[in-house]
Amino acid sequence: MTDRAIAFELIATDGEARRGRLHTRHGVVQTPAFMPVATQATVKSLSPGEIAESGARMVIMNTYHLWLRPGPEVVAGQAELHGFARWPHVIVTDSGGFQAFSLAKLCKLTEEGFAFSSHLDGSRRLLSPEESMRVQGLLGSDIAMQLDVCPPGGADTPTLVAAIERTTRWAERCLSARRPGQALFGIIQGGADLALRLRHASELARLPFDGLALGGFSVGESNDSMHQTLRRLVPEVDRNRPRYLMGVGTPRDLLLAMGCGVDMFDCVMPTRNARNGQAFVRSGRVTIKQAKFRDDPLPIEPGCNCATCQGGYSRAYLRHLYMAKEILCHRLLTVHNLHFYGELMRGAREAIERGCYSDYAASRLREMATNEQPVELG
Amino acid sequence: MTDRAIAFELIATDGEARRGRLHTRHGVVQTPAFMPVATQATVKSLSPGEIAESGARMVIMNTYHLWLRPGPEVVAGQAELHGFARWPHVIVTDSGGFQAFSLAKLCKLTEEGFAFSSHLDGSRRLLSPEESMRVQGLLGSDIAMQLDVCPPGGADTPTLVAAIERTTRWAERCLSARRPGQALFGIIQGGADLALRLRHASELARLPFDGLALGGFSVGESNDSMHQTLRRLVPEVDRNRPRYLMGVGTPRDLLLAMGCGVDMFDCVMPTRNARNGQAFVRSGRVTIKQAKFRDDPLPIEPGCNCATCQGGYSRAYLRHLYMAKEILCHRLLTVHNLHFYGELMRGAREAIERGCYSDYAASRLREMATNEQPVELG
Repeated sequence: MTDRAIAFELIATDGEARRGRLHTRHGVVQTPAFMPVATQATVKSLSPGEIAESGARMVIMNTYHLWLRPGPEVVAGQAELHGFARWPHVIVTDSGGFQAFSLAKLCKLTEEGFAFSSHLDGSRRLLSPEESMRVQGLLGSDIAMQLDVCPPGGADTPTLVAAIERTTRWAERCLSARRPGQALFGIIQGGADLALRLRHASELARLPFDGLALGGFSVGESNDSMHQTLRRLVPEVDRNRPRYLMGVGTPRDLLLAMGCGVDMFDCVMPTRNARNGQAFVRSGRVTIKQAKFRDDPLPIEPGCNCATCQGGYSRAYLRHLYMAKEILCHRLLTVHNLHFYGELMRGAREAIERGCYSDYAASRLREMATNEQPVELG
Repeated sequence: MTDRAIAFELIATDGEARRGRLHTRHGVVQTPAFMPVATQATVKSLSPGEIAESGARMVIMNTYHLWLRPGPEVVAGQAELHGFARWPHVIVTDSGGFQAFSLAKLCKLTEEGFAFSSHLDGSRRLLSPEESMRVQGLLGSDIAMQLDVCPPGGADTPTLVAAIERTTRWAERCLSARRPGQALFGIIQGGADLALRLRHASELARLPFDGLALGGFSVGESNDSMHQTLRRLVPEVDRNRPRYLMGVGTPRDLLLAMGCGVDMFDCVMPTRNARNGQAFVRSGRVTIKQAKFRDDPLPIEPGCNCATCQGGYSRAYLRHLYMAKEILCHRLLTVHNLHFYGELMRGAREAIERGCYSDYAASRLREMATNEQPVELG
């Protein structure tokens, strides 16, 4: 490691797909990597040990929520997020901007930042680039995200331009306010407008960020539109830094985006869908409450190595737990789903190393055809 | 083991307190023993491994709930409760009568049984002694409980007499209908009327039950009244069979009842209180949401060997999880509370073996004086 907060090492490429290692003060993360979402400093229902068993070595936590409750000073006093949440591996925090805009009340966006009322107690708050950096600094994540402006899906060009220009100005303010030793990623915006995306990618690449993220995807645009944009955009994002596609996505999204050269992902899907009784399997998804599982003695996915499937929990038992609204269902499905995502990524990393990523992705996508829409690889 | 379903071995006594071993087809249970409650075939939020880590080797599951959902035939088809819930140790099922009376709608009690409407779908059901035995037989528990009539707290003498007489008639019907190889316990009723309790205890002791339970405690009578009754009643219950005090209780209740010669307990308190943010500690109880824990870096109980305290989860983090309504709080507190109960029982067993049970109980009760009402040992 250099004196930088993190170092990204590219160890193999296969077409645009990349196989790397992210060196941090909390260990090495093999990329491409999927980050489970630990919104309130917990991946809902799981112990840190169970998260790590899925293969994940990096999680993302939510600055907005932790800022409002319990407050960054409380977290700082408990040996920061790593000590507080007992997660010894890598932690990323988002900037809080997305939630300030989508979750808080009476949010007003100005050059200063997001002025809003807390969704918890109505108190007035200002989330500025400096405040976001201060809060993320106190939280002590390994990687902080810059405060950015995420335009709504379908925004017109002037709105998109204003968003990327403000995001760039905020990028500089965030870099000036960052906590020493904490890595910081910039966030590329521009909606579905490829030219704006490319312009913003090159603007941000001139700044000393430790990584570059793609924000504002998966906010309502069509899946095909996202994939088309990624195919042309990602290869143009500075290849020497990790590329992080925020808030995406389905297994199919991940396979396509890795093929474009994305290194990091986060998404609530495996954890949120578990809460709703949905399990990921190689052929698509299983909705555990279906009556056909009432007497089904099989595990969610025969052959799966996760603790749920290996523990002998039958679909019949999981269905029963779901119908009875038992927490253990949420937990057992979360273990399975994160393991599924972990396996998908592990397989992708191996395939890139062996130079057969497009075969791997095509084969995984074909398997999904039973329940998911089949697609052509770009 | 004999050809009986279970065998009870008394290995030491200390005053009225007893140290035993319950031999079953699913292993040996050291007594006195506390059984966590797994109402719907799950101890809420815990894996079977975590339950066993608390020291528990016997849990109680709920016949009423499992009868209505998923149905005993479903469970029977999944290798019975042991296979269904992945619990390899001992399982007790209650009779379902208590819930049919307290939870179901339009319940009518006759000599035939409880006629009621399901609280789930309103369907009419009849829980007779024979149906309870059929359902418990399909569930495949190691120990079934007879269907009994539990009179309400404060019932008058004629009501109590009618309840014990019907319970005795049902006892005989249950014994005739039991599944071969499944142990069956009788249930002594009689409210707070010692003479009736003693009469019922001797009536049931004449029947070939594998154990004798004390029902109808902890249904509204005062704690002192229960302790007084237990002190005179328990020593008169057949000493060659395990004695099981149903639905009781606090750590204080357990200490006093073990001193009277009770061998088995079950209670929702450690698991239900965990859900409400309450943790048991040697000095009493801790309500984790209290503001004083906001910045508290200590574990729930310093020196505690449970996975929660040893895992370094601070009171500050647990409070945060509770305030944020995170499931992990429920889980971590349940682990702690069951461990607390397990340690209490382990200590009691050792003390009985060493002949110093009354010192042990007195010392534990003294420690509780900070938060719990101090008591005199009888």
